[in-house]
Amino acid sequence: MLPASSPQSHILLIRCPDAPGLVYKITGVLFAHGLNIIRNGEFVERADNCFFMRTEFAGEFEAETLLQELRTTLPAAADIRLSNNQQKTIVLMATKEHHCLSELLVRHAFGELNARIVGVISNYAVLGELTRQFGLPFHHISHEGKSREAHEAEVLAVLAGYQPEFVVLAKYMRILSSEFVAHYANRLINIHHSFLPAFVGASPYAQAYARGVKIIGATAHFVNEQLDQGPIIAQSVIPIDHTQSAHEMAQAGRDVEKIVLARSLQLVFAERVFVHHNKTIIFD
Amino acid sequence: MLPASSPQSHILLIRCPDAPGLVYKITGVLFAHGLNIIRNGEFVERADNCFFMRTEFAGEFEAETLLQELRTTLPAAADIRLSNNQQKTIVLMATKEHHCLSELLVRHAFGELNARIVGVISNYAVLGELTRQFGLPFHHISHEGKSREAHEAEVLAVLAGYQPEFVVLAKYMRILSSEFVAHYANRLINIHHSFLPAFVGASPYAQAYARGVKIIGATAHFVNEQLDQGPIIAQSVIPIDHTQSAHEMAQAGRDVEKIVLARSLQLVFAERVFVHHNKTIIFD
Amino acid sequence: MLPASSPQSHILLIRCPDAPGLVYKITGVLFAHGLNIIRNGEFVERADNCFFMRTEFAGEFEAETLLQELRTTLPAAADIRLSNNQQKTIVLMATKEHHCLSELLVRHAFGELNARIVGVISNYAVLGELTRQFGLPFHHISHEGKSREAHEAEVLAVLAGYQPEFVVLAKYMRILSSEFVAHYANRLINIHHSFLPAFVGASPYAQAYARGVKIIGATAHFVNEQLDQGPIIAQSVIPIDHTQSAHEMAQAGRDVEKIVLARSLQLVFAERVFVHHNKTIIFD
Amino acid sequence: MLPASSPQSHILLIRCPDAPGLVYKITGVLFAHGLNIIRNGEFVERADNCFFMRTEFAGEFEAETLLQELRTTLPAAADIRLSNNQQKTIVLMATKEHHCLSELLVRHAFGELNARIVGVISNYAVLGELTRQFGLPFHHISHEGKSREAHEAEVLAVLAGYQPEFVVLAKYMRILSSEFVAHYANRLINIHHSFLPAFVGASPYAQAYARGVKIIGATAHFVNEQLDQGPIIAQSVIPIDHTQSAHEMAQAGRDVEKIVLARSLQLVFAERVFVHHNKTIIFD
Repeated sequence: MLPASSPQSHILLIRCPDAPGLVYKITGVLFAHGLNIIRNGEFVERADNCFFMRTEFAGEFEAETLLQELRTTLPAAADIRLSNNQQKTIVLMATKEHHCLSELLVRHAFGELNARIVGVISNYAVLGELTRQFGLPFHHISHEGKSREAHEAEVLAVLAGYQPEFVVLAKYMRILSSEFVAHYANRLINIHHSFLPAFVGASPYAQAYARGVKIIGATAHFVNEQLDQGPIIAQSVIPIDHTQSAHEMAQAGRDVEKIVLARSLQLVFAERVFVHHNKTIIFD
Repeated sequence: MLPASSPQSHILLIRCPDAPGLVYKITGVLFAHGLNIIRNGEFVERADNCFFMRTEFAGEFEAETLLQELRTTLPAAADIRLSNNQQKTIVLMATKEHHCLSELLVRHAFGELNARIVGVISNYAVLGELTRQFGLPFHHISHEGKSREAHEAEVLAVLAGYQPEFVVLAKYMRILSSEFVAHYANRLINIHHSFLPAFVGASPYAQAYARGVKIIGATAHFVNEQLDQGPIIAQSVIPIDHTQSAHEMAQAGRDVEKIVLARSLQLVFAERVFVHHNKTIIFD
Repeated sequence: MLPASSPQSHILLIRCPDAPGLVYKITGVLFAHGLNIIRNGEFVERADNCFFMRTEFAGEFEAETLLQELRTTLPAAADIRLSNNQQKTIVLMATKEHHCLSELLVRHAFGELNARIVGVISNYAVLGELTRQFGLPFHHISHEGKSREAHEAEVLAVLAGYQPEFVVLAKYMRILSSEFVAHYANRLINIHHSFLPAFVGASPYAQAYARGVKIIGATAHFVNEQLDQGPIIAQSVIPIDHTQSAHEMAQAGRDVEKIVLARSLQLVFAERVFVHHNKTIIFD
Repeated sequence: MLPASSPQSHILLIRCPDAPGLVYKITGVLFAHGLNIIRNGEFVERADNCFFMRTEFAGEFEAETLLQELRTTLPAAADIRLSNNQQKTIVLMATKEHHCLSELLVRHAFGELNARIVGVISNYAVLGELTRQFGLPFHHISHEGKSREAHEAEVLAVLAGYQPEFVVLAKYMRILSSEFVAHYANRLINIHHSFLPAFVGASPYAQAYARGVKIIGATAHFVNEQLDQGPIIAQSVIPIDHTQSAHEMAQAGRDVEKIVLARSLQLVFAERVFVHHNKTIIFD
């Protein structure tokens, strides 16, 4: 649920077509280098026989040599990644609602985010004071009177200056173009409310009220071309009832959203999440 | 959540356009009759200014006199109902899955259902043994080789013989026509799985697996003309993860379904549920 | 769960021995004054036949006249309170952990707390920067080298200067004397972690880890003379498993604590909570 | 959460002091035998550097040879177990409450329990009819007028006749002696209600009502010498509020208990649970 990795550890991430002996071969390479496995997880997706392995290990080694040996040992199609498990560099994007942004700014200020926020971008000015209060640069890039392309070009230019590893949509309420999304494939994380059942269209809380929904929730996911349809990282729910107005439901929903977003970032930044087709494989 | 009423108590249910002094006037009538209020709940739906009141009371009274006085006191549009809070007479309908049927049969056998099951109808024979084991009549009405109208006519004929106050769809997997539903308006209760997000179409658990959903649930609702879109009575969820197959998710989903269905029946049979447009007002 | 009252409304709170006709008599007084009931809730605690009523109403009236009429109408033992539903004045107390304090400071900054934080007191200096960043006075009152009485006397002196309606222990980690608690009876709110099962003594997360607990939670409660045994206002839980270290469990626990504390304050500040013996009656 | 194993698969369970290369060595033995790993999980308990591994695999092999090779490869202290993953043979023990017993009898009747119930023992006669209705032998062994030793001796004699792999206490309400427990160490599973906070002594639901508890739950655990203090297998909770009587809370608690007990049995019978000191390591 809420894992953390030892800061001194290294993480090996492997995805390849399943075959007999993969765990044996991979751990053999690590053993030969005298490396000590701290935590190990494997999973095989039977639908397409895809093997996933996440190994946290400690010890001294020469990265390029290790990777080369793994490449030789594993099938050519193997996707092998080595992470030194350092803080990720991220940019946050928001609109007017503060709850996700303030949650992340506070965690960041107290060293709990496992990431370095380098900047905040918003299409409104309202969250600027909060951001600056935490000593971080705030970019107000209004979308007013601009085409979507023009607005996104400005945002992309600011992002390019930061070179973030991940962009976190902390209640950024504008739909992003496929072109924008493509720039940050599997690196763009979003949070949105979720309902049982789902409501399509505007004012979902008003719809939830009208339907007498008993549970509302939130979903954190990677963004892909289909709006709100990308691989799910984390979800949670909260019970509600008919005595709560749509406004009160929205308040409750915000509490869930910010915790679920923070939890999803903990998982992603600790290199615990593989994206595979339209789902995630999570080693927690 | 899981309320029960005292068996000796009476329940007064009122719905009318909101107006000043309604609670005062209604409780005044009860007070004048020397009746003792045990539990009282009111709610005003602001969207259409509709007033709801549920009063549980004890004491001796002449029902027709009391109702007449309430009718005189309240606006003409008032919907006033008096229930002696006795066990409801119900028929269960199922298909092949046993989990909801067996849950209700067991509760019934131990006097926990607050209802009398008078018969079970299924379009398959497979659940006959279980039903008879609990000493209840089982009607196998196959739909094979019949038009929907012809099949429903047979089911309606059996139901007519029982005169049930409620029909409970305990995983009855055939879509019912609007004509069928109209026979049991606000008296037909269904259970179905629910997902965050929702999945349209066949094999929802396969879709949930493919999407890497983290939470699945169940919704008990009254049936109206729109499939699975009627007023929600109860919902619950359970966490899942990518290591569970679609088959395992379905197992977990069944556990939630049967408990949610049983809970919704407890609420409805205790006269705690008003249906209002497409939602429920629940006094728990 | 997360209710809010209309800011213009008034709230009438009544507690008295149960008797026939109480709702009738109380609503009669309001009706005679031409006041409009917005939301009404009653509850009778059968264990000691105590009647509770919370009425939210709108309209113009003379407070003393209304109270006088209610006093005449109700039994002499009745506890009658009228609230104009304004923001409460509160002081926060904390030690070293920031999560509850920062949650409340952020909500306060965005006008979501339904209260005015007038000051923050801590026995350590570490949270001073955060507090001042939000423009609020921070009182560092170290307990080092002082008797409990001496330290509490200093804290009480600062509190006396603020005249707060409620004191919120946002992870204040020192045990308060009965004398201190008596100064703020039913006005002192605390948050603490909770476990299934409970663990007595030090390092509860280490104990929870050793026992392989699957669920941890948090309880917000009023403080009374018995440590952590006062009336419960709100509780919530989160699932965990054996792969999480005691450190990771504590992280998850903090997320639950801050949301539960914020929710309990919303309930209390909206005048929805009666304290009765060692429990709460909550009208949500 | 609710896992199931392929019926044709084999399961290798290893516990030993942690050392470099364990995964490599173990998977090497399986690879050399041409066996195909279906699912693999490892965990190292850092508190005492104990390594756990659960491997589900398919293929043909000679069990004694495989075990011999593993014994040679691993440290002498290694605990190595091979399971052919067949249905466990179990006996259920109950007292008067039916909810856990009926849950397990129904699942058993429909082939969902992954175990064969060979008999039911109770110190009362009341559940005999239900048990026989499902075609299973019922042993009424009254404790009246007998010493604890004498009563347990009778129960142990009946159990001895069945040679069960596990004994499930499905609401068996008598305290078992250490001698009894020792006969079925790590093979005796119990379910009991759980509260936040915990309540010691009689009538916990009455205490929970008096305290205004907001959440109740259930814990399934292995029984050891300390009453209700053994290793936890599964837990779940349900929200409640002050409007529910102690009786209604107990009803809600029973719903949680039966689902949690069933879930814990699924985990144990699928060989997913290691008992380690006073906790469980669960590979789900």
